[in-house]
Amino acid sequence: MIKKQMPKRFGPTKPMQHIPKDDGVNKTDPNRLDMLIQKATSLASNLTTSRHTSSRQNLRVIPMGGVEEVGENMTAFEFGDDIIVIDMGLAFPDDTMPGIDYIIPDTKWLEENKKRIRGVIITHGHLDHIGAVPYILPKLGDPPVYTMALTAGFIKKRLEEFGLLGRSKINVLNKDDVLALGSFKIRFFRLNHSIPDSMGLSITSPVGQIIYATDWKFDHTPADGKPTEFDKIARFGAEGVLLLMSDSTNAVKPGYCASEREIGLTIERTFGDIKGRIIFANFSTNISRIQQVFDAAAKFNRKVIVTGRSLVNNIEIALSLGYLKIQPKIIVKSEAAKKYPDNQIVILTTGAQGEEAAGLARIARGDHKTVKIKKGDTTIVSASPIPGNERAISAMLSNLTRLGSHVIYNKTLDIHTSGHAHQEELKLMMALTKPKYFMPIHGEHHMIVAHAELAKTMGMPPENIFTLDNGQILEVGSDKIAKVTTDDKISSGYVFIDGLGVGDVGEVVIRDRQVMAQDGMFVIIITLNRRDGKLINQPDIISRGFIYMKGNDDLIREVKHEVRKLVETKGKEKLEPNWAYLRNVIRDEVGEYLYQKTERRPMVLPVIIEI
Amino acid sequence: MIKKQMPKRFGPTKPMQHIPKDDGVNKTDPNRLDMLIQKATSLASNLTTSRHTSSRQNLRVIPMGGVEEVGENMTAFEFGDDIIVIDMGLAFPDDTMPGIDYIIPDTKWLEENKKRIRGVIITHGHLDHIGAVPYILPKLGDPPVYTMALTAGFIKKRLEEFGLLGRSKINVLNKDDVLALGSFKIRFFRLNHSIPDSMGLSITSPVGQIIYATDWKFDHTPADGKPTEFDKIARFGAEGVLLLMSDSTNAVKPGYCASEREIGLTIERTFGDIKGRIIFANFSTNISRIQQVFDAAAKFNRKVIVTGRSLVNNIEIALSLGYLKIQPKIIVKSEAAKKYPDNQIVILTTGAQGEEAAGLARIARGDHKTVKIKKGDTTIVSASPIPGNERAISAMLSNLTRLGSHVIYNKTLDIHTSGHAHQEELKLMMALTKPKYFMPIHGEHHMIVAHAELAKTMGMPPENIFTLDNGQILEVGSDKIAKVTTDDKISSGYVFIDGLGVGDVGEVVIRDRQVMAQDGMFVIIITLNRRDGKLINQPDIISRGFIYMKGNDDLIREVKHEVRKLVETKGKEKLEPNWAYLRNVIRDEVGEYLYQKTERRPMVLPVIIEI
Repeated sequence: MIKKQMPKRFGPTKPMQHIPKDDGVNKTDPNRLDMLIQKATSLASNLTTSRHTSSRQNLRVIPMGGVEEVGENMTAFEFGDDIIVIDMGLAFPDDTMPGIDYIIPDTKWLEENKKRIRGVIITHGHLDHIGAVPYILPKLGDPPVYTMALTAGFIKKRLEEFGLLGRSKINVLNKDDVLALGSFKIRFFRLNHSIPDSMGLSITSPVGQIIYATDWKFDHTPADGKPTEFDKIARFGAEGVLLLMSDSTNAVKPGYCASEREIGLTIERTFGDIKGRIIFANFSTNISRIQQVFDAAAKFNRKVIVTGRSLVNNIEIALSLGYLKIQPKIIVKSEAAKKYPDNQIVILTTGAQGEEAAGLARIARGDHKTVKIKKGDTTIVSASPIPGNERAISAMLSNLTRLGSHVIYNKTLDIHTSGHAHQEELKLMMALTKPKYFMPIHGEHHMIVAHAELAKTMGMPPENIFTLDNGQILEVGSDKIAKVTTDDKISSGYVFIDGLGVGDVGEVVIRDRQVMAQDGMFVIIITLNRRDGKLINQPDIISRGFIYMKGNDDLIREVKHEVRKLVETKGKEKLEPNWAYLRNVIRDEVGEYLYQKTERRPMVLPVIIEI
Repeated sequence: MIKKQMPKRFGPTKPMQHIPKDDGVNKTDPNRLDMLIQKATSLASNLTTSRHTSSRQNLRVIPMGGVEEVGENMTAFEFGDDIIVIDMGLAFPDDTMPGIDYIIPDTKWLEENKKRIRGVIITHGHLDHIGAVPYILPKLGDPPVYTMALTAGFIKKRLEEFGLLGRSKINVLNKDDVLALGSFKIRFFRLNHSIPDSMGLSITSPVGQIIYATDWKFDHTPADGKPTEFDKIARFGAEGVLLLMSDSTNAVKPGYCASEREIGLTIERTFGDIKGRIIFANFSTNISRIQQVFDAAAKFNRKVIVTGRSLVNNIEIALSLGYLKIQPKIIVKSEAAKKYPDNQIVILTTGAQGEEAAGLARIARGDHKTVKIKKGDTTIVSASPIPGNERAISAMLSNLTRLGSHVIYNKTLDIHTSGHAHQEELKLMMALTKPKYFMPIHGEHHMIVAHAELAKTMGMPPENIFTLDNGQILEVGSDKIAKVTTDDKISSGYVFIDGLGVGDVGEVVIRDRQVMAQDGMFVIIITLNRRDGKLINQPDIISRGFIYMKGNDDLIREVKHEVRKLVETKGKEKLEPNWAYLRNVIRDEVGEYLYQKTERRPMVLPVIIEI
């Protein structure tokens, strides 16, 4: 992690300039947006004139997470004294991070500059965009959050679970609102994604407009009937776009992403064919998919049992806010479901990624509280594996078939579509916005580069395309010339979350876990007489995860003998109060001996007890 | 692991009845096969009449590995006193098996019955079919191996690396040979796969013919110009097939698997477009793909640098046996390559799965001995990820792009095809062989079940389809009625290979590694006075992988205090020579305390030292 810090430049704290929904403008008035823009512009210019403490009048765009990995999406924009933050996501650990629950971005720079944060904008309600909210908001002095209604519902639920509700103000916006935060004016346009209310941003800064296209796809027939606002995007494009930032998740995939409605038709057809119970697993946040499951269930006169805490919560939130429309009494409890025949039941559950603790994995292991698989069941896994989860999912499918369920998943049927634009859509976004500069975001580096290549095929000059790493800074001055600052970078890196600990597990702890996972550990306890350095007891050995101790008496005996010899010879060479030298010798010699005998390298830990 | 053993029934050991290549029959004679069959049949009947010690005259088919997982393929056939073994493969560990290098099948039953093993037949040279050969052959008394020339070359190389060459006789067969081993007569038919010489088997037992379709696909335009021997399969089918055993790896995939030649054309087109150096990574055993790389290189006047030990070995073997045909002097050493411009170079390497120690991963990390990526390079990863390797591959692609290479892989271009039949091919195999019974093999349980479902759609009665687990036994008597024996099962399960240890890492060791990988370990050393049980020293604590110790002095102090109290109170309650009670109390109490403070569960290990 790079520790270099940004100079602190605390300006006078300005109140947020949220233009409320009830702004006295007729919502059906076609001129409403323009009027709001004027209003916001005048607010922004007021702010600009009132600023005189800041020496720097450059726009700085700082991806804090999400450009070196899929997940933990977070971006900061700075102009003069003002900072705004877009999204606060988490990522899931890979297999080089044993025991870690989540990863969130390093926010030291923001913590040091928290007084300058004018607001946090959340684009949509997925965990890779809201998951870090409860970890990060309190560290930033609980700044206000701006987002759409459904996303706000998800955020509030999450803050409630962390006992943080009521600290940051969660402001619910209308998609046609204009938000003024310090030097920034933010307008919104609806995109499509696998959750309703995913919003693209037009961020107007004093040096130009940025189009921030978060996780998105173009869906002409979305499940909620609300397609992308192409008109707005085109209008923003016509205003002149300094910088486009856009989702790279599927930048390597040719063509178009299938519409959610196509999946809905497949779900419907499949439900029509199935005779027994249906167990349907998908992401608990995929409200569009959930809507289509309820629709298909209603069509074929099936009741729906909802199981899994996050799913129950999300469905409650979506229902209460009108984002989910279902037949009255279609949801039944497990107990009440017993009176219905199998062909009138759908069990909606989580765990489509094979997560150990989620509903479907528990059903597959046979230890779910209320759902037991029986012959004639059909399980539908409506998801594509997140890289790294493939083997867990495959094992789960095998367990389900073993219990008698038929299984349907993305390899056997197109029962899932991505929420991320493919190449043709990405190109259309560039064509609509016609940006001067382009920064691909949201993806691993090779996806980001693939997206950059795509921009080149559209005729964008390579020097106008910026592929940044987390913590790097793209700076645009009043000359509108963008460049990556070579002399500056904010603190960046992964903060690991493990149990209750946030950031207390660092690289050393992770490395130790990796070593012990590979070949276990081997503790040697040496009890010495404090005065003469002679062994009091035979050395004790505790080993776990290395070798089955009972069958290896000879090896252990040999090691004890070796340690004894080392204490007798080396112990005298260099008598130290903390015995560091002797410990090092024993670690090296025993480690080498064990490697020769086994070709394994357990963590060898000599402990010297002085009596 | 089920420990129940088969009754030992050692009959008189019979010599193997290998009919040699030079059998006096004109090889171009169309009647050769029939003549050989007659010859073999008479041999087999001789053997049958000479057997009188065996009480049991049932055919027993025992999948020993490969029906609950992808990999470690191995099957045993038993009739009377005779056992034959097909393949000895390894599998790669999943993330629940930290530190394990490979998995091989449990062979206890074969070891106990090794005198009855008449021979081992290896169908092709992939590691999931030959990888366990050096581990298992010696335990079975080095029985003779029968296989085709290329596979024999790979096996010999592997045995050589283990210092085992010259023990088992490796018999090289011609594809039209007939092999008689005890009660079994084995004929061969060529299939297609991603390695030449993949052979299907017709195994004739006294109760009927088994068609054993190992890893295969139908390829009408294979790279080596040697398509499947449909005529033979049809002829065997016409003889009447008791049981078909067939590859389930792609049983969930609709349609047909693309031909290797299609990939060849893509490689050619791609090579034609690329201006700089080409780094091409694929499996070192995929001789067909390697052939096509050499062909494309020759076409565009590029030299080929081969890097990676396994690749160099396999190319040498394939060249020496005539399975690879390349231009003279097309292979150059790295040093000599320097005189060629970039557009005349192909670097052929291994590591398409992101394996840490293989060529491509080292190139991507920038620590390869001879290959350094430079701007303008194009890396082609010609493989699809083996489930579990996705994240490692993705990280490798990111590193390659970071170093300046363009990357092409299966998501961006159809640069790889599978070696395993899709549904339409699987159905054609059933249609050609018209088996009475069907046993899907090679795959995880849900793939096996998908293959069984496919058989049902072909009209096969469900009761004639057998989906077995490893170690289960399918038995067919002289009445030709097949059934899974419910009262018998051979010892089965995974044998873990870790470093030099084969089978010395069991479930306990694996579980310990998992626990330490999750939350680390916490050793508490308590030094007591032997006589009065009183503490001599302050308790010592050694912890790794749990928490960063330096920042958590309070926690450690609290634990020491807690341990002190426990020793003082509980130590007196039940004075035992080995202090088991006190250790248990400390483990439980400290474990609970740490969980409350951190929500982590490190492995807590109290050690009591008596002075």
